[in-house]
Amino acid sequence: MLKLYDNRLSGNGYKTRLLMHQLGMPFEVEWVDILKGETRTPEFLAINPNGRIPTLVDSDYILPESNAILCYLADGTPFLPDNRQVKGRILQWLFFEQYSHEPNIATVRHWLAHLGYDADDPQVLERQTKGEMVLNLMNEHLSVQPFFVGGDYTIADIALYAYTHVAHEGGYDLSNRPALKAWLDRVANQPGYVTMDAD
Amino acid sequence: MLKLYDNRLSGNGYKTRLLMHQLGMPFEVEWVDILKGETRTPEFLAINPNGRIPTLVDSDYILPESNAILCYLADGTPFLPDNRQVKGRILQWLFFEQYSHEPNIATVRHWLAHLGYDADDPQVLERQTKGEMVLNLMNEHLSVQPFFVGGDYTIADIALYAYTHVAHEGGYDLSNRPALKAWLDRVANQPGYVTMDAD
Repeated sequence: MLKLYDNRLSGNGYKTRLLMHQLGMPFEVEWVDILKGETRTPEFLAINPNGRIPTLVDSDYILPESNAILCYLADGTPFLPDNRQVKGRILQWLFFEQYSHEPNIATVRHWLAHLGYDADDPQVLERQTKGEMVLNLMNEHLSVQPFFVGGDYTIADIALYAYTHVAHEGGYDLSNRPALKAWLDRVANQPGYVTMDAD
Repeated sequence: MLKLYDNRLSGNGYKTRLLMHQLGMPFEVEWVDILKGETRTPEFLAINPNGRIPTLVDSDYILPESNAILCYLADGTPFLPDNRQVKGRILQWLFFEQYSHEPNIATVRHWLAHLGYDADDPQVLERQTKGEMVLNLMNEHLSVQPFFVGGDYTIADIALYAYTHVAHEGGYDLSNRPALKAWLDRVANQPGYVTMDAD
């Protein structure tokens, strides 16, 4: 059976659990406490030398990096169809998520909600400025299409949903972004959807 | 013919040019001056709303994000073989590159070499601490295998080479990392290799 090392605070981990639920793939989870340093122990570093969750174990194949896990699990399914241009477009949004979205939306949430940073910390404010631009770009993109890659729900939506739906915990207000809010609802209504606190 | 919007300072752009040379794919380049704000004009934002190079144009298909471009161009070639576990592993390193490597190695280079930040700026020092760990991890990984994904040269190597081979411009010293240095030489000896200043 697939095994996932994960943490309940992590949107990156949630992505992979949401996909496995939606693909109907059974899996077990070993919860790892990031805040207690459990991703930096010698035991965990032997599994993932980069010391991060989620990390997937599929028999003797160990795979870190949430978006690589999404691609691996979804390969050839409707969540990542075998069409070169569609795959390119999905990957575009997955890399956008890790480079432009995650450091501004997810990291600020982690700082404010879990590590107790002040809301007016200069680093928080600098990242929020970038995060607002990211959310505007997403809202604009979704104003002309229901999902990130055309008409179909894919792992691009799963990847971007994970931290966008908790962006308010990072001080973001989505109320003036109707297309983004409608997309959040659309994702939450997909078959097999589970919330972030589900196993 | 393929067209690439690119900038000569960018390792992200270099990745995509290096691959196209190695695949023997003809392409033309339109150079865009990042430092003069040419990626933020209305004309460029109509091509890539995220305002970044490289951006690839293949007839009416426009694709931003350097690592998505690598996957799109290399799909099904020996640089990205059609094997689920190998693809997963290559993607693991591509996402590692964008999330863990680029913000610490490439951004610090950009700050020091192009934007004139002081070498003892606290932001520089903070990122260099993380960058040193990234380079150690890479050196360790390469001490037991010639390329990032087993025995074969893939787009994982191209993606990680681009900013690693100019890491010294960001204040990094590779001399105590022999496996990493040997890998840089190995990449530079691949068929079709071109340097960063090649068109």
